[in-house]
Amino acid sequence: MKHVLFFLFLLLPFFLISQQDEQEKDAFFIKDIYNKTLTEGQSYDWLMYLTKQIGGRLSGSPAAAAAIEYTRQLMVSMDMDSVWLQPCMVPHWVRGEKEECRMISTRLGTMDLACLALGNSIGTGPSGVSAEVVEVQSIDEAEELGKQGKIKGKIVFYNRPFDQTQINTMAAYGGAVDQRVVGPTMAAKYGAIGAVVRSMTNKTDDIPHTGVTYYRDGHECPAVAISTMAADQLEEALKHEKVRVYFRTNCKNLDPILSYNVIGEIKGTEKPDEIILVSGHLDSWDVGTGAHDDGSGCVHSLEVINVLKKLNYKPKRTLRCVMYMNEENGGEGANTYRDVSNEKKEYHMAAIESDRGGFTPRGFTADGHDDIFNDKFKRVIEWLPLLEPYGLNLRKGGSGADVSKLKGQKGLLFGFEPDSQRYFDYHHTPADAPDVVNKRELELGAAAITALVYLLDKYGLGD
Amino acid sequence: MKHVLFFLFLLLPFFLISQQDEQEKDAFFIKDIYNKTLTEGQSYDWLMYLTKQIGGRLSGSPAAAAAIEYTRQLMVSMDMDSVWLQPCMVPHWVRGEKEECRMISTRLGTMDLACLALGNSIGTGPSGVSAEVVEVQSIDEAEELGKQGKIKGKIVFYNRPFDQTQINTMAAYGGAVDQRVVGPTMAAKYGAIGAVVRSMTNKTDDIPHTGVTYYRDGHECPAVAISTMAADQLEEALKHEKVRVYFRTNCKNLDPILSYNVIGEIKGTEKPDEIILVSGHLDSWDVGTGAHDDGSGCVHSLEVINVLKKLNYKPKRTLRCVMYMNEENGGEGANTYRDVSNEKKEYHMAAIESDRGGFTPRGFTADGHDDIFNDKFKRVIEWLPLLEPYGLNLRKGGSGADVSKLKGQKGLLFGFEPDSQRYFDYHHTPADAPDVVNKRELELGAAAITALVYLLDKYGLGD
Repeated sequence: MKHVLFFLFLLLPFFLISQQDEQEKDAFFIKDIYNKTLTEGQSYDWLMYLTKQIGGRLSGSPAAAAAIEYTRQLMVSMDMDSVWLQPCMVPHWVRGEKEECRMISTRLGTMDLACLALGNSIGTGPSGVSAEVVEVQSIDEAEELGKQGKIKGKIVFYNRPFDQTQINTMAAYGGAVDQRVVGPTMAAKYGAIGAVVRSMTNKTDDIPHTGVTYYRDGHECPAVAISTMAADQLEEALKHEKVRVYFRTNCKNLDPILSYNVIGEIKGTEKPDEIILVSGHLDSWDVGTGAHDDGSGCVHSLEVINVLKKLNYKPKRTLRCVMYMNEENGGEGANTYRDVSNEKKEYHMAAIESDRGGFTPRGFTADGHDDIFNDKFKRVIEWLPLLEPYGLNLRKGGSGADVSKLKGQKGLLFGFEPDSQRYFDYHHTPADAPDVVNKRELELGAAAITALVYLLDKYGLGD
Repeated sequence: MKHVLFFLFLLLPFFLISQQDEQEKDAFFIKDIYNKTLTEGQSYDWLMYLTKQIGGRLSGSPAAAAAIEYTRQLMVSMDMDSVWLQPCMVPHWVRGEKEECRMISTRLGTMDLACLALGNSIGTGPSGVSAEVVEVQSIDEAEELGKQGKIKGKIVFYNRPFDQTQINTMAAYGGAVDQRVVGPTMAAKYGAIGAVVRSMTNKTDDIPHTGVTYYRDGHECPAVAISTMAADQLEEALKHEKVRVYFRTNCKNLDPILSYNVIGEIKGTEKPDEIILVSGHLDSWDVGTGAHDDGSGCVHSLEVINVLKKLNYKPKRTLRCVMYMNEENGGEGANTYRDVSNEKKEYHMAAIESDRGGFTPRGFTADGHDDIFNDKFKRVIEWLPLLEPYGLNLRKGGSGADVSKLKGQKGLLFGFEPDSQRYFDYHHTPADAPDVVNKRELELGAAAITALVYLLDKYGLGD
């Protein structure tokens, strides 16, 4: 035994040297990834096509069909091993003619409030709705007032703002968005005839932010988001007197419709059954052109494949790229993808989602099943010295609405995390357009994801 | 001796606990700084005034005078212990009537090239200059061709682009800007009649970027920057044939003129002789309104004082806030400040400059005299755990054009370091305007600097 130990001791320097060599090789390859992405990357051009030529891509719309065909053709042109469309039925909501919303105050007269109908919400019909407004700060408060019969026949106004002291704006969003998602159905449950929600943004401006709302147990009422400036005006008016709001929306829920996830993959040479997924969602809201949300995530994911191909990298594991459909108002693309994958008993060793915009990268959040998270995340943390020179960090945190559905497969789930400060200036508005994406910021995101994919592919997660 | 050791050993836990308590107190205070800045900060409003009401503030211009008076009044309104104007003589360059630049090619015909005269450059006079173009990639190449008599009577075109593979765009700027600063004088030295410089930016667009040039030993020729798109066109044309360029500039160097640094301070309660400086430069280029460069640095610095005042913080050391004049085309404000300070035998324990824009903070670069740097920087690095939660890092690196002149006082010099990706989209162009500054990004910068000032003031640097 002593002899063996002595022998191992003699070998130690060689192990250390070879480990150092490997780290140096990795550092060089990651530098190659960045260089290639920053000088020959195509993500920005693709994003310009997706936003300028195709535009807003709500599930079920003709533009969504164009986006499916465009990204399918892109994948084919990259010479991936296989490219296919995965059918999924998606909700088909249409906004219809432009909405309108007015505040009617005895003191101030009538004032227009900039508004957008919430996605999935029912329309008011041509006569609109008009009622006294009840302002609340939370779902709980609405429920409380509802139980007291105080919102029956009224319009409920959810007005809790973003918490500006949250450094990460995603946390501020998380702390306010329940008002939009379940506020209207709670209002309807207690007889409200409509709901008005303060827009989900850090900014004080006159741009309304749409976004999804879900009705529960058949409790439905028409619902709009109003701009933060409009919300402030309404709040101010309500300090002095009772105020009515009138709004009219022309949206409709049509029958679910056939759509597709777009999928391409490169088969792994050594461990083809271990899948590494890169993804974004192809659908966007109809207002704006989904530049940050989530055109950026789509072109990030395509660029990962593109750059690795250009570097002649042959992955050991299977690299798969998915453009999810219907993240915005249903998640049916991700549900289908999960169901099919589970049925085939696939194993996503790692699934990465980019759905927080095309801003300068700050790192990744990682998540996973409790059974495996600590063990696998420990391995990833060891790669930090290779990522930190690019300003990248790794922390525990949610992955994303689409890939989180793969948790049951017990791989690691990652959310790409760019700088969050400007995201809610544009999110779900007409302002989410090509001009607010910076080419280098976008490219750095693609390079960051590619670097992580390279390390995941090379070292695996100890399976 | 043993007894003393035993006694100390008994005390150890108390020391550790009290150290932990202090760190917790610091963490809470830094959180207070962020909360206050993000909810009651005024930096954005001040920046809007500086950019929208006052506008471009080139040294010697009426707008520079307005900016001096505006920031002086702000300091007075903050109830600082003293506020004063420090006189300094500054260069007085004026652009005059709009420039023009055209490429004359037999093959392509005549094409306009978007241009701006370089700051401090001489004008062409009303007839302009017209000559065959010689393209070079570097100062050395120009000198080489000059020695061979190949640039005499010609217009030298400096066309080395930014290195896009630099992650930090400041490094790409540093690697290209010699062409603008000393390119024209080198061309003039060998008889060129003009110089055209590719704009200093990562972007390919049609916006020319001005900036300073310096003539040496009386070697002067008129000089313009052309947009990167114009530079690409000229480069392409030169691949096929000899090409002429005509340009006309109407700029002039007038006599130096009296201007001022604006200074305010709060006297330290315990160590008033140890000065902590926060600073930006008040002058900007005449095109655009100096929003990022360096309105942001000015309002950052003012906000540090404002927020500490609002938190009722009484500094132990003297906090001084300087709005430097003439950083852009001479540095005479900083020269005067240094001379007066050295004469008074002042000691700047720490001097912080913010002159890299109002983007999301990434940390600080630190610099200092070799005699003291390692020792003092070591102390600062210990504060990292308090700064990292806000995405802030500390690294060795240049401080800034103005505060670096205080190196002889052997304090630490800091440059605030925000995200660099968008800086050269706007730098020295009409696009450096209020709409490209994000309120929260700006405020986070002010909070980051305030946090560092708080730690510097509380713990000092071991003097």
